[in-house]
Amino acid sequence: MFFFDKHELRIPGPVPVPPKVLLASASPMINHRGAEFREKLPLVLDRLKPIFATENAIIALTGSGSAAMEAAVANLVNPGDPVLVLVGGSFGQRWLDICTSYGAKVLELQYPWGKGVDPLDVQAILKTHPEIEVVFATHNESSTAVLNDIEGIGEVVNQFDALFVVDAVSSLGGSPLETDNWGVDVVCTASQKCLLTPPGLAFVSISQRARSRMKKVTSPRFYLDLLRYEEMLMQGETPYTPNIANFFALEEALNLIEAEGLENIYARHYLMRDMIRVGMQALELPLLVEEPWASPTVTSVRPDFSDVVGFCRRLEQKYGVEVAGGQGLFAGKIFRVGHMGYATPLDMVTTLAAIEASLGQYGKACAAAEKTWDDWIKENQGASGC
Amino acid sequence: MFFFDKHELRIPGPVPVPPKVLLASASPMINHRGAEFREKLPLVLDRLKPIFATENAIIALTGSGSAAMEAAVANLVNPGDPVLVLVGGSFGQRWLDICTSYGAKVLELQYPWGKGVDPLDVQAILKTHPEIEVVFATHNESSTAVLNDIEGIGEVVNQFDALFVVDAVSSLGGSPLETDNWGVDVVCTASQKCLLTPPGLAFVSISQRARSRMKKVTSPRFYLDLLRYEEMLMQGETPYTPNIANFFALEEALNLIEAEGLENIYARHYLMRDMIRVGMQALELPLLVEEPWASPTVTSVRPDFSDVVGFCRRLEQKYGVEVAGGQGLFAGKIFRVGHMGYATPLDMVTTLAAIEASLGQYGKACAAAEKTWDDWIKENQGASGC
Repeated sequence: MFFFDKHELRIPGPVPVPPKVLLASASPMINHRGAEFREKLPLVLDRLKPIFATENAIIALTGSGSAAMEAAVANLVNPGDPVLVLVGGSFGQRWLDICTSYGAKVLELQYPWGKGVDPLDVQAILKTHPEIEVVFATHNESSTAVLNDIEGIGEVVNQFDALFVVDAVSSLGGSPLETDNWGVDVVCTASQKCLLTPPGLAFVSISQRARSRMKKVTSPRFYLDLLRYEEMLMQGETPYTPNIANFFALEEALNLIEAEGLENIYARHYLMRDMIRVGMQALELPLLVEEPWASPTVTSVRPDFSDVVGFCRRLEQKYGVEVAGGQGLFAGKIFRVGHMGYATPLDMVTTLAAIEASLGQYGKACAAAEKTWDDWIKENQGASGC
Repeated sequence: MFFFDKHELRIPGPVPVPPKVLLASASPMINHRGAEFREKLPLVLDRLKPIFATENAIIALTGSGSAAMEAAVANLVNPGDPVLVLVGGSFGQRWLDICTSYGAKVLELQYPWGKGVDPLDVQAILKTHPEIEVVFATHNESSTAVLNDIEGIGEVVNQFDALFVVDAVSSLGGSPLETDNWGVDVVCTASQKCLLTPPGLAFVSISQRARSRMKKVTSPRFYLDLLRYEEMLMQGETPYTPNIANFFALEEALNLIEAEGLENIYARHYLMRDMIRVGMQALELPLLVEEPWASPTVTSVRPDFSDVVGFCRRLEQKYGVEVAGGQGLFAGKIFRVGHMGYATPLDMVTTLAAIEASLGQYGKACAAAEKTWDDWIKENQGASGC
């Protein structure tokens, strides 16, 4: 292998971080209770609001996306509270595990791994179980590469009294999530996916309804007590020492995100998805997920050869491209290509080049992907004339 | 002000991070479930063992020191369990708040802010209350700048059945903590103090007795479920995406720590403490803490002028040295000078220079501190002849 640093990280997170962002993360330490940080914290969180498409407060936790998910449960669920969890992969399962840890009375809606939830199924359950107080869903189920229809599910949940909580860890910033318009009360995400920064920070948005409920919940929590974070945020502080380096990084990442613009970012993600999908089709590698649910941030492939783990290992060791294997039900059966965050159409070409070369199918996938890319350019940049 | 970057951060954490460590933290991202990280994680944790002076397992959490403290409580305490908490400052109070959140039956031993716990007082309580199952103590109470006698308290606690849990967030790596020899079952610390790295990682060591108890505890926990971290560590992984950047940083920090050697590091901290103390005495600024408890990582001063907050602000804005004010009982009454981690005797001189200059007492504190330093050099490096 050549230049280990040029190793292509094409997993569904952590994703490559732009060098400018890495360098910002290496800024000298400052006092987290001093003037500079007190100014920085609310500004950075405000700049996240357009990405969440919300007017709700956003809280930063020093932790992973799972910490944000647990914070949602710990602050919204008492032991015995009836909740509905939508499970179609490892991250739906994570909601289930957390809710179970907190003693919730859990109703599961299991939907097939590799497909999305049908909002009508959610509606049917809520009709039969109007006692449900909170619904937990996954926007992008990265274990299968399914993007769920949060707008559709939100429409249904909002017909009832239940709060709607969404894990958007591997989608936010790569795929539109209209928190307010779609009636999502709590959105959880993390720094290391489409927000272009290293892992170490998680974010939670909180609606007024969610806040009211949190005030009445008695489950034990301290580090994850979201209302305490909200209270401290009034003074521009966090209750506990935050991951300062990641805030420096995130500021620089937000500069990049704002410069590109959200619509362009979403379009780039869908283009990258389409390039990977046509590439796989050109190689006759079966895609796991059908179009309506195909994630813009990760694509899963279920090849008909048996040694998928060995295939991934060769791809990494011989060609320098690291994709992810399967999890849970799909362990050893699929591989997943991450295409989120700091990634471009050219990165999709290199990824496909490695995959097709490793299969001796030189050029096939690249040809298809390049055509998709070029069609996109013609359609979107048309007669711009360069 | 000149060169904002040369701003001297002399608070009790986060502390300045060596440039080499900052640069390491800016390394490109890697897969936290890939070969490189799986090799790195157990190696880094093993290298922490000499600093903890333990053979116990050490777990890394992505979070602050308070996350580590909550992990200790969540994994060791059921609602209603009788525990003893030693409280003589904000961080003792934090143990109390967390234990209360988890519904423990809490007995408090309040000791005066600015003094250390008397182990005999702990003994007396444990004799009267042999039902106590866990004792929570603070090694370095950074809100007051008191270093508690953990060895003495450990001797007492170990005469009973109780487990002994110590918050060593602002001491570990700056002051000896003999986890195994002193019978400490759980030690909590964090990355941003004497471990020379940015905030974002916390560490917990777990004795065999503590592990056995954890298996029986039913308090809800998910992100802070320490046994799950232990289990995943067998494969070189963490259950949730870790703060990868901080592991790169910590590796470089450990290189520096190992190169200097723990005995030299501890001696440097005590020398810095003594320089600050004689400097304050030369300025007739009263020290809050008496000798036996004077912390090697932070010193608190209780001046007789009234506007301590304004004094700290002037020190920062005019002279570029940032010290910390007081907390809780001592808010507005004391200031605290951090002298831990990436700091040298010369940094103590600059800190004292700013303080004495701001008081118009040019040279006085520096003179005293330099003498202390030079005496130390003569005693320790004697006839080394340079």
